[in-house]
Amino acid sequence: MIRGLLSVLLVLVAVAVSSSLAKPEKNIAKRGKRIPQTLSRGWGDQLIWAQTYEEALYWARAQNKPLMVIFHLEDCPHSASMKKVFAEDKDIQKVADEDFIILNLVYETTDKHLSPDGQYVPRIIFVDPSMTVRADITGHYSNRMYAYEPSDIKLLLSNMQKAKKLLKTEL
Amino acid sequence: MIRGLLSVLLVLVAVAVSSSLAKPEKNIAKRGKRIPQTLSRGWGDQLIWAQTYEEALYWARAQNKPLMVIFHLEDCPHSASMKKVFAEDKDIQKVADEDFIILNLVYETTDKHLSPDGQYVPRIIFVDPSMTVRADITGHYSNRMYAYEPSDIKLLLSNMQKAKKLLKTEL
Repeated sequence: MIRGLLSVLLVLVAVAVSSSLAKPEKNIAKRGKRIPQTLSRGWGDQLIWAQTYEEALYWARAQNKPLMVIFHLEDCPHSASMKKVFAEDKDIQKVADEDFIILNLVYETTDKHLSPDGQYVPRIIFVDPSMTVRADITGHYSNRMYAYEPSDIKLLLSNMQKAKKLLKTEL
Repeated sequence: MIRGLLSVLLVLVAVAVSSSLAKPEKNIAKRGKRIPQTLSRGWGDQLIWAQTYEEALYWARAQNKPLMVIFHLEDCPHSASMKKVFAEDKDIQKVADEDFIILNLVYETTDKHLSPDGQYVPRIIFVDPSMTVRADITGHYSNRMYAYEPSDIKLLLSNMQKAKKLLKTEL
C-alpha cells in the first residue's frame, strides 16, 4: 500500500516537474464530432504502437527487439517539427516498423531510468530487450543528451541501427 | 534499480498469468494499408481516453473526477460483447464523457490494487480521485466481482453513479 502511494506521489512529482502538459481537449469539440485519438499521435499511422511502457517491455522481451520510447507533447513546437520529419522519413518508418517495438508518450512513467538527464521533450530513449536503458545512445546535445531536432534525423537513424545491435546476442 | 527489476518481473508474471493476449497484428496487414489504432479501441470513439494509468491518475486528481479502468482483450468474446453494449449505450457514454476519466487497457499494470480478486477480462475498476480503488463497487458475480456482462449494463450505470459520490467531498 505504501509502495503504491509512493508510486502515485512519484507520478505527481513527475507530472508537476514537466513544464507544459497536453490537456484533454474536452471543450474544443464538445458539441461537434471528435476525431478519434490514435495511438500513433501522428508519428506514423501505419506503425504498430504499444499503448503503455509495460506492454512495450513485454513485446521487447517476447520479440527480442529493442524498444524506442518517444517522449513528446502535443503543444510543443519542437515535438511537432520532429514528429513531422519522423513520420515522413521512409527509412525511419521502415526500420521502426520492422525492427523495433515503439511507444510514444505524452506523460512520464514512474521509471526514472527513462530520464537519465531529466524530463524534457522531445526525447528519444532506447531500451534493449534485456531491459537495459541504452543511456549510451545519445543525440548531439550535451545538456539534453536524448533530444533530437529535425536536422538530426540521420543521426537518429544511425542510433536506431546502433540499438539494433543487442547487448546480449546469445539466447 | 532492484525496485525497477522487481516491477519488470511483476509485469512479466502478470502478463504470463493472463490467459490469452492480444498480439500485434504485424502479419495480417503487412502489405496492405493498416487502420490506425485508436485509444478508444471501440469502447466509444467520441470519448476522451487516457493512454496510461499514470496519465489517468493525474487527470482524476486534477479534475477531481473518478477514474474508470476497463480491462479487456481484443480477442475475447466476452470483452467484445460488453464493448458493443458499452459503446452503444447513450447514457453510459454521456456519463463517461462528462463525469469520468476513462482508460481501457489490454495489458495489466504493475499496481496490484487494480486486481482485487485476480486478473481477468472484462473487468471494470473504479478509482476515486483520492487515489483509492473502489473495491466496494462490484458487479453481480461473487467469483469475479468486477466482471460485467452485457445484461449488467444498468448495474454498471448505477455503479458509475455510485463512483461519482466521491469519498472526500470537502476540498
